Amino acid sequence: MKIGFIGLGNMGSPMANNLLKAGHELFIFDLVQASVKKLLDQHPGKVRALSAPKEVAAAGLDLIITMLPAAVHVKSVYLGPDGVLANVSTQTALIDSSTIDPQTAREVAAIAAAQGNVMLDAPVSGGTGGAEAGTLTFMVGGDEAEFTRYKNIFNAMGKNIVYCGGSGNGQVAKVANNMLLGISMIGTAEAMSLGVSLGMEPKVLAGIINTSSGRCWSSDTYNPFPGVLENVPASRGYTGGFGSDLMLKDLGLAAEAAKLAKQPIPLGSLAQQIYQTFSLQGNGGLDFSAIINLFRKK
Amino acid sequence: MKIGFIGLGNMGSPMANNLLKAGHELFIFDLVQASVKKLLDQHPGKVRALSAPKEVAAAGLDLIITMLPAAVHVKSVYLGPDGVLANVSTQTALIDSSTIDPQTAREVAAIAAAQGNVMLDAPVSGGTGGAEAGTLTFMVGGDEAEFTRYKNIFNAMGKNIVYCGGSGNGQVAKVANNMLLGISMIGTAEAMSLGVSLGMEPKVLAGIINTSSGRCWSSDTYNPFPGVLENVPASRGYTGGFGSDLMLKDLGLAAEAAKLAKQPIPLGSLAQQIYQTFSLQGNGGLDFSAIINLFRKK
Repeated sequence: MKIGFIGLGNMGSPMANNLLKAGHELFIFDLVQASVKKLLDQHPGKVRALSAPKEVAAAGLDLIITMLPAAVHVKSVYLGPDGVLANVSTQTALIDSSTIDPQTAREVAAIAAAQGNVMLDAPVSGGTGGAEAGTLTFMVGGDEAEFTRYKNIFNAMGKNIVYCGGSGNGQVAKVANNMLLGISMIGTAEAMSLGVSLGMEPKVLAGIINTSSGRCWSSDTYNPFPGVLENVPASRGYTGGFGSDLMLKDLGLAAEAAKLAKQPIPLGSLAQQIYQTFSLQGNGGLDFSAIINLFRKK
Repeated sequence: MKIGFIGLGNMGSPMANNLLKAGHELFIFDLVQASVKKLLDQHPGKVRALSAPKEVAAAGLDLIITMLPAAVHVKSVYLGPDGVLANVSTQTALIDSSTIDPQTAREVAAIAAAQGNVMLDAPVSGGTGGAEAGTLTFMVGGDEAEFTRYKNIFNAMGKNIVYCGGSGNGQVAKVANNMLLGISMIGTAEAMSLGVSLGMEPKVLAGIINTSSGRCWSSDTYNPFPGVLENVPASRGYTGGFGSDLMLKDLGLAAEAAKLAKQPIPLGSLAQQIYQTFSLQGNGGLDFSAIINLFRKK
């Protein structure tokens, strides 16, 4: 397939790389020239660099994938006279893999649909490691037949491809899951810290929680207490993994979506404030399980 | 074995019943005569009713088990001139299965140890259903050799018997696990409500969460959204299960323990206030997953 790819950051670059490995031809754009050059050098003859989103839109491609930092960039790339939508033919399908608020995802998809373009929202989880290994989870919203049509494309970049329902529902699933993840991680951090400060061995306590009703991914797969699990950020100084500032971004999206829906999220809201505190203290680059450092006696 | 059993409430009665079925001889006390009579009638010749804790203490038994509502009752039964400790021989071991704060558990156990009595703290989880079926989880704190010596006794009443470390650690494990459980349940309720109010099918959303990083016992085993799982309180009007007021009690114990340890528990503390709100509104008797009713559009 001839695929446009806009947004070659830490996630977009390895995703584009996996599409190229699967034999697709890519037409790429990014503001950062070094990212563009790297991909051109890695796959000579298979990649063409274009100079603006509207050029990607006008190139007569089968599909355009976007992977952008936030809703403001998605709006800027898709909307307006120089945007993708104003310059694309109805033969080109659109997939936005950025993590943004469901409301914006639905607004952009509605404009695309009104002019006859297929558009899917397909945010991912799995981090840069998953993007490189091609093991991302894609949460996809939009028309189910179109989801099925592009499943091969998702499979070239990911492992777990989930249809979430109508337009915007990929973003809804991600925001709901990640809000619960942020809450569970802080809850696990509090419970582990409380138990240890009251005299329990961390591994014994984790073992009990993991076979009891407190069991959660944050405890049994990604425990924030150092030394409980091997090969998790907690056991290598909270490097790598999923950054605290990315969790803060997702909690902000949850808060925004909840506000629009008049949906109370007291724990989600406090979780956002706790990650905000952690970020303000200069810890935004640490893995999100480092939040336990707010609660642990040293 | 000759076993004293003090406290024949909703949990104590079926636990005593299982000890009798296992062939032990029981010496029982409860303030509620109907509870005493019921057990006498069910097991003629195997049960003797005594008229006060001090009589149970003075009966020359191998073991006394207590199952009481709160720390105030534990202190009243064990301490003072008419209490168990003042009237028991050092040949009688003591097991308190009440759920109380770790501090009180350690104080009472220290007094017992000082006069030469073995004492274990052994709070349970699994509710009245687990007590009846003999499938309770026991979280046991105290001397490990004594834990091993009485493992058969625990096995007569439960299925999962976990040694948690020194005196009081059974209570610590329970309080830490149940605080995380309360946080996870509210977090799941918020995430499910948010996702559904933004347009997702509850079962689809739960399926995504349960295979993603938001996965937790409250979502995959006890989902609070009606219709997602069968055979959980959410699918029968939040009857049965684990009462909201019992969760509130455990969150109160966590708050108390955290205060003594100067341990910050921001989400645990807010979870306590949320269950307090729910209880104040008259919902304390509903299963604790009914907390989702605070967050759901009807």
